[in-house]
Amino acid sequence: MELLEEHHCFEGRQQRWRHDSRVLNCAMTFSIFLPPVSGNAKLPVLYWLSGLTCNDENFTTKAGAQRVAAELGIALVMPDTSPRGDDVADDAGYDLGKGAGFYLNATQTPWAQHYRMYDYLRDELPALIQAEFAVSDRSAISGHSMGGHGALVMALKNPGKYVSVSAFAPIVNPTQVPWGQKAFTAYLGEDSATWQAWDSCALMLASQPEQAIPTLIDQGDADQFLATQLQPAVLAEAARQKDWPLTLRIQPGYDHSYYFIASFIEDHLRFHAQQLLK
Amino acid sequence: MELLEEHHCFEGRQQRWRHDSRVLNCAMTFSIFLPPVSGNAKLPVLYWLSGLTCNDENFTTKAGAQRVAAELGIALVMPDTSPRGDDVADDAGYDLGKGAGFYLNATQTPWAQHYRMYDYLRDELPALIQAEFAVSDRSAISGHSMGGHGALVMALKNPGKYVSVSAFAPIVNPTQVPWGQKAFTAYLGEDSATWQAWDSCALMLASQPEQAIPTLIDQGDADQFLATQLQPAVLAEAARQKDWPLTLRIQPGYDHSYYFIASFIEDHLRFHAQQLLK
Repeated sequence: MELLEEHHCFEGRQQRWRHDSRVLNCAMTFSIFLPPVSGNAKLPVLYWLSGLTCNDENFTTKAGAQRVAAELGIALVMPDTSPRGDDVADDAGYDLGKGAGFYLNATQTPWAQHYRMYDYLRDELPALIQAEFAVSDRSAISGHSMGGHGALVMALKNPGKYVSVSAFAPIVNPTQVPWGQKAFTAYLGEDSATWQAWDSCALMLASQPEQAIPTLIDQGDADQFLATQLQPAVLAEAARQKDWPLTLRIQPGYDHSYYFIASFIEDHLRFHAQQLLK
Repeated sequence: MELLEEHHCFEGRQQRWRHDSRVLNCAMTFSIFLPPVSGNAKLPVLYWLSGLTCNDENFTTKAGAQRVAAELGIALVMPDTSPRGDDVADDAGYDLGKGAGFYLNATQTPWAQHYRMYDYLRDELPALIQAEFAVSDRSAISGHSMGGHGALVMALKNPGKYVSVSAFAPIVNPTQVPWGQKAFTAYLGEDSATWQAWDSCALMLASQPEQAIPTLIDQGDADQFLATQLQPAVLAEAARQKDWPLTLRIQPGYDHSYYFIASFIEDHLRFHAQQLLK
């Protein structure tokens, strides 16, 4: 691991690291915020998954999460949104290829060689974080837009791995909306039956009662993607059917930007703290 | 005026505007945060001046100031750092020309045609803000690095205009450091006697007791520019000689980045609120 940057921030440390990923078959960069610690306490971790076009720095620089994470004693880990590098397949569109990994394991050529963000986030990155930093085994996950999809899918596919999950303006039903259909066709192929394993609504409808964890979603009602790409009400209906503890908050006037995330990230951190600090 | 962007943020409005500046002889962009208001209350204003290479968006997206400004009921105005446009003189260096206006009135060719940021900030922009937004006549000023220099100079040269001034890692003594000497030679000419009118230390030493206003400076001790470009102790000594109410805080471990600003911007907003909300 190579330390690329380190900054003092709210009495903690904001760092940026590069490491070689075996799973993704390329060098990857992630950011981490380590709050101030007293003694040998091990920190719980909140993973943050970013949206289309982002890397590890968007949330790090714009969300203002470090203040509350420092107060609560929660480490924040911000992975990148796709594999990277000159030999990694890409697409001219902003919503496919680099910056648009959709947190799944691709099965199709040319994507399958590198695009295994699901395995990276489930296994390789947490193992690295555990090995290199003084963190506990309690973790939660959150994200924005494509990253909200990623957070929900990671939580729904891995019962017991996260104590809570939250999202801002997530793509909850990717099999039914243009962003998801384009990405899934490329990464997973034409057979839409294989897509269901990466759709939060389908996963929630197939879930068992004992795997439910506290879930918080914030959605701005002035979000330009609300009607065409996001539709959180579909997930809320699945949650109602399954008695899943989902709180969906519609925030009047807010859009899809980081100004929306910054406005409510404190609520999400305190929501996760209820479980992480138990 | 043309509205370029508007976002809901902490129940207030984050806007970006373009207008034609007579003083600067070009189109200019500024950002403004308007906190939520009840009734017809007029908002006090904090002007924020950014550092080298920045525009109006760095502080807007990275400092996390809107949360506290919304709570306190203070409008934030973020101007650009220089005139802009294809016909505006520029330099290959990051520390001269566009993005590096140094908040002064240039007298030398080719700079004098557009580089009058001092007049723009003293007269034109506040008049525009007063005319277009429901703001009061109480204002304060703050900034970072070159913008900390700008904030101090604006306050020192205009007694009664601002109720308080603060800065993060300001260039307090530009006549004596490389950044200032390069810029002042270009903008003001070789005669360094003319430079004194734009040097906070010289201005403070020449100040009258009745013009003193509460002044707060934060400086990280891990700032890579501390010894060569910043040297806040020189201003602190001038303040001591003049009995000027300056609080200089050295923050251990902090560098020159927006992570430093984000960590202490709440203190600065509450400091200004003591005067702005009187």
